Amino acid sequence: MKKLINGAENVVAEALAGMAAAHRDLIRVHFEPNYIVRADAPVRGKVGLVSGGGSGHEPMHGGFVGRGMLDAACPGAIFTSPTPDQMSEATKAVNGGAGVLLIVKNYTGDIMNFEMAAELAKEDGIEVRQVVIDDDVAVKDSLYTAGRRGVGATVLAEKICGGAAEEGADLERVAALCRAVNGAARSMGLALSACTVPQAGKPSFELADDEMEFGIGIHGEPGRKRMKLEKADHVAEMLMEPILADLPFRRGDEVLLFVNGMGATPLIELYIVYRAAQAIAEKHGLAVSRRLVGPFMTSLEMAGVSITLLRLDDAMRKAWDAPVVTPAMRWGA
Amino acid sequence: MKKLINGAENVVAEALAGMAAAHRDLIRVHFEPNYIVRADAPVRGKVGLVSGGGSGHEPMHGGFVGRGMLDAACPGAIFTSPTPDQMSEATKAVNGGAGVLLIVKNYTGDIMNFEMAAELAKEDGIEVRQVVIDDDVAVKDSLYTAGRRGVGATVLAEKICGGAAEEGADLERVAALCRAVNGAARSMGLALSACTVPQAGKPSFELADDEMEFGIGIHGEPGRKRMKLEKADHVAEMLMEPILADLPFRRGDEVLLFVNGMGATPLIELYIVYRAAQAIAEKHGLAVSRRLVGPFMTSLEMAGVSITLLRLDDAMRKAWDAPVVTPAMRWGA
Repeated sequence: MKKLINGAENVVAEALAGMAAAHRDLIRVHFEPNYIVRADAPVRGKVGLVSGGGSGHEPMHGGFVGRGMLDAACPGAIFTSPTPDQMSEATKAVNGGAGVLLIVKNYTGDIMNFEMAAELAKEDGIEVRQVVIDDDVAVKDSLYTAGRRGVGATVLAEKICGGAAEEGADLERVAALCRAVNGAARSMGLALSACTVPQAGKPSFELADDEMEFGIGIHGEPGRKRMKLEKADHVAEMLMEPILADLPFRRGDEVLLFVNGMGATPLIELYIVYRAAQAIAEKHGLAVSRRLVGPFMTSLEMAGVSITLLRLDDAMRKAWDAPVVTPAMRWGA
Repeated sequence: MKKLINGAENVVAEALAGMAAAHRDLIRVHFEPNYIVRADAPVRGKVGLVSGGGSGHEPMHGGFVGRGMLDAACPGAIFTSPTPDQMSEATKAVNGGAGVLLIVKNYTGDIMNFEMAAELAKEDGIEVRQVVIDDDVAVKDSLYTAGRRGVGATVLAEKICGGAAEEGADLERVAALCRAVNGAARSMGLALSACTVPQAGKPSFELADDEMEFGIGIHGEPGRKRMKLEKADHVAEMLMEPILADLPFRRGDEVLLFVNGMGATPLIELYIVYRAAQAIAEKHGLAVSRRLVGPFMTSLEMAGVSITLLRLDDAMRKAWDAPVVTPAMRWGA
């Protein structure tokens, strides 16, 4: 295992300390329980947005805390759900009196712990809603999930709900928008290499020099099939086809196209995939009006790519374009 | 070689096509010769900023084209200098009548070709200045360089000069600011793994499972020494010590601390290194008032990190904080 760390047991705490030091204008980090809140939390009268999950997917979620996106993120240990007390403390810390939305990726541990956190928050008199993200069309159930996994749509939902909450939307409206984003988004990914969880010390799986794992999850859990590595244009087709068929997307739909890097894949390759994916979308009669290209939801140093396609409506587009000021996503303000 | 590409010979052209498709609101891409210009180029009365170099370092330089940063970037083949005609065409395309500054990393090919491009531009009546960036304290000469290599300071110079040019500074002023940034910045990097140039098809060097290459360049060229992998805090010390000694930085200096990922190193590790580097800077009495953490100048899928420390003055700080709207760096507008 080759990593720039001091010890497997300190990875998350030291990375959080680094984030706190680097972004003290934007965020504050609370330790034990670990959570990140925007520097001006709680914002009076604004719906609070809380997400979280295992660490190792950076910049998701901590890099998305700030004005116009999340109010708090709860980082668990690497690839491990955060605990209910992290979530409930974060919820309390960002409660500005207008309620709090919990954005939960569909993994069994996350679901259970966010559920308990929601109960705790309700006992404290905080109005809470939960929306589960489950946009991955690759598999029906998997190692860590009953039902579809929550992947790339999470990033889009956090940005869009954050934009709406910042502009004064109420809790029901923000929760409805989150459900709408999840309902209109589909994703699929693949890996060219595995990643190594520091405390495990060895790669989570092995791939031959000419193989890729198609339909992979963000923890290295198996996908649809293991197959020979294909050219980028063919890879893009293989990802786009089940995405397009699933919603289904229809001619004339306006979409956001998100090409996400899993960690080690260079930007230059992501743009090659983006080029192919946009051409496929356009051949299907879709109008790609918004896009995102880069490593926003990673699996440590895994090489690979995922594609998320979101059918936009006016409310989503407006909230997507709204200003955002976070460590990892920042524009318009 | 495992890469999401269609063929080694198409990598740069297809990635540029992807960038053009993804960022058509910000940039335009010209093919043969290849260069990227901001969508509103040329900007009348503004000093034009042109940089470039081999591809494989994305987002540098193409991701830095846009309002408040570069007017044009010239991407060569992977790890290969762009040609003089790319540079001179780009210079013409962004000439708004106030002259053009060429920001050149100190590699023999880049220096030669930018020199020829400058001559060509002068023949066309364009006022041109060149500033060479050579901030790498690792080695005196190297495989591709006479003198020190140009590395992380390039990113900072492009942002700072871009901010000043956007606010109306004239050519002499922007060139002086660029020289000042280069003069006040020092960098050092290391690699945990090699990268593979697509047309070579195999890694540029080999490192054992417990080794790192210390003082490496951004093309995988050898550094100061090959040594056992150390803990992140020790790695940060080894990088910071020669940087601090070289300028030298003095107690009370205000600095920008830039922790850069070489490609495959996860953000979580960059923050661990950032935390250690800031602590070392503060122990030295430096005030870290600005920072940048992320993969901004990469070497394809190389794992590793570099640190750049820039002593800030008022003009640099103001230009750093100015709005920027590019594919890879974007804030305040």
